Amino acid sequence: MISNFIFPDILLYLLDMVGVIACAIAGTLLAQHKGFDIAGCILVSMVNAIGGGTLRDMALDRHPLFWMTDLNYVIVITVTSLILQIFFHLYHKIDKALKFFDAIGLAAFSVIGFKVALAQDVSPVIAVMMGVWTAIIGGLLRDIICNEIPLLLQREIYITASIAGSVTYLVLDYWGVDAITNEFMMLFIIFAVRMLALKFDWHLPSIRLVD
Amino acid sequence: MISNFIFPDILLYLLDMVGVIACAIAGTLLAQHKGFDIAGCILVSMVNAIGGGTLRDMALDRHPLFWMTDLNYVIVITVTSLILQIFFHLYHKIDKALKFFDAIGLAAFSVIGFKVALAQDVSPVIAVMMGVWTAIIGGLLRDIICNEIPLLLQREIYITASIAGSVTYLVLDYWGVDAITNEFMMLFIIFAVRMLALKFDWHLPSIRLVD
Amino acid sequence: MISNFIFPDILLYLLDMVGVIACAIAGTLLAQHKGFDIAGCILVSMVNAIGGGTLRDMALDRHPLFWMTDLNYVIVITVTSLILQIFFHLYHKIDKALKFFDAIGLAAFSVIGFKVALAQDVSPVIAVMMGVWTAIIGGLLRDIICNEIPLLLQREIYITASIAGSVTYLVLDYWGVDAITNEFMMLFIIFAVRMLALKFDWHLPSIRLVD
Repeated sequence: MISNFIFPDILLYLLDMVGVIACAIAGTLLAQHKGFDIAGCILVSMVNAIGGGTLRDMALDRHPLFWMTDLNYVIVITVTSLILQIFFHLYHKIDKALKFFDAIGLAAFSVIGFKVALAQDVSPVIAVMMGVWTAIIGGLLRDIICNEIPLLLQREIYITASIAGSVTYLVLDYWGVDAITNEFMMLFIIFAVRMLALKFDWHLPSIRLVD
Repeated sequence: MISNFIFPDILLYLLDMVGVIACAIAGTLLAQHKGFDIAGCILVSMVNAIGGGTLRDMALDRHPLFWMTDLNYVIVITVTSLILQIFFHLYHKIDKALKFFDAIGLAAFSVIGFKVALAQDVSPVIAVMMGVWTAIIGGLLRDIICNEIPLLLQREIYITASIAGSVTYLVLDYWGVDAITNEFMMLFIIFAVRMLALKFDWHLPSIRLVD
Repeated sequence: MISNFIFPDILLYLLDMVGVIACAIAGTLLAQHKGFDIAGCILVSMVNAIGGGTLRDMALDRHPLFWMTDLNYVIVITVTSLILQIFFHLYHKIDKALKFFDAIGLAAFSVIGFKVALAQDVSPVIAVMMGVWTAIIGGLLRDIICNEIPLLLQREIYITASIAGSVTYLVLDYWGVDAITNEFMMLFIIFAVRMLALKFDWHLPSIRLVD
């Protein structure tokens, strides 16, 4: 039965913030690349970091939105974006680290979105979708604002990693694994799938190429 | 007086599913064309098929969203998109059929959006807008994600067909026509206007060209 | 303490309508430029004029949305867009006036978004964000639909003007200035900063250029 998540919430919160910082960095980098000004870069980094959770909360009718009651999100994003803009010339040194932090964010965002949806008593299928949604919508909106074709739809194991983690959770939960262990498993699997995909250049096929 | 829609709801539901399938096909085709992978194609087809209704429900504060309580939507879209991706090489054979099904979808989506809005006690003008909204936002979002200029804003009798149907409904309702007949009329008019526009290549002028 | 906005609401409503008209004009002009048809131009002008307030109300869970209970918005936008489309050849004569009206709109939209958010008991930081949000999201959505890179993120003192006004309000409020005076001040400062930025070609730096 899916219920009663008990989890070291502090850890999840910290991983969430790591994801927020990674998204803020990714948003600022793309915005800088597009020649946006200071305010524009901060705005894009906010969209990237909290856009997914915002739309999830709106879809699930959870009000007030999570970042309205916890100002840490807005503060962390703004500070991250400003620091990065000042030290933009160090960009090439952070690219690799960014992918690492981004994978942490993908895992944390997926778990949070999945948990939040289950707590609203939606069906497991919808909860899996909400995990994906929370994890990817921010990056999608960033690319849309910057007038780019979303990379994550093209060649990245991103959605797949999130789904793999959620499905594992559901299966283990069905087998009676306790919630804490299970949530750690979910975090780990999403992170691992994503990092392995980056390392070995895995990507989903575009089926069109097959025929 | 506008009230008490009584309608063979089963028929409307079936037409809705036809529209969902048409949208899932259209979304998958464009996503394939853009080189998106399997997950990306499914995501775009979901946005195309349920994006309009999702934003309508969020605007009207109807929760839970329609596809959260009826998993058929998610299942039908995913299966449609997967089948199409596997048989993509048959694409050229479905183009004509797609336009037919898409017109059914336009009619069904418009009627549903219009009815849902009236049931929330909004003014008739807003209900007409919500019919249009439900019918077009999905396609708009699809084009935005795929970084295309939305075709439907350029040269298609699409919004106009939806408005024509809604206004007919309102007029006939004022004249005392019963709801069932009226709803059939609305479905038929939208479908007919759209098909005739395709057949005779009607399109709204861009007034700019006049002067 | 931030509370009890008492303001000549009529004036604010009129300024709001000025902003709505300016946005409807800006949306129609861009849509015409893109070759959209009559319905497409009206749709883009609606998105531009009421898109920001719509998303603000959805984020703050204020229902029904403001334009659902006051049809003036939809009517004013539609009429404005149609008139402009008919007299599009006069475009070059309205460009300068547009910037003036747009600055009024920026001020009015910011004040309204800021007030609405405060009335929902959010923190001041979030209220400042909601002022910005109301003022810019419409234009952002317009550019996204028209497949343009949002200008306002690149080189305009726009977000900054809105923030300057909100922060002034908060500071003066803390110092005990009464709400009416304060709201006039906020309107004036946003308008003045925007007009001065246009006149003297101020823009925020893109920090990247510094290093």
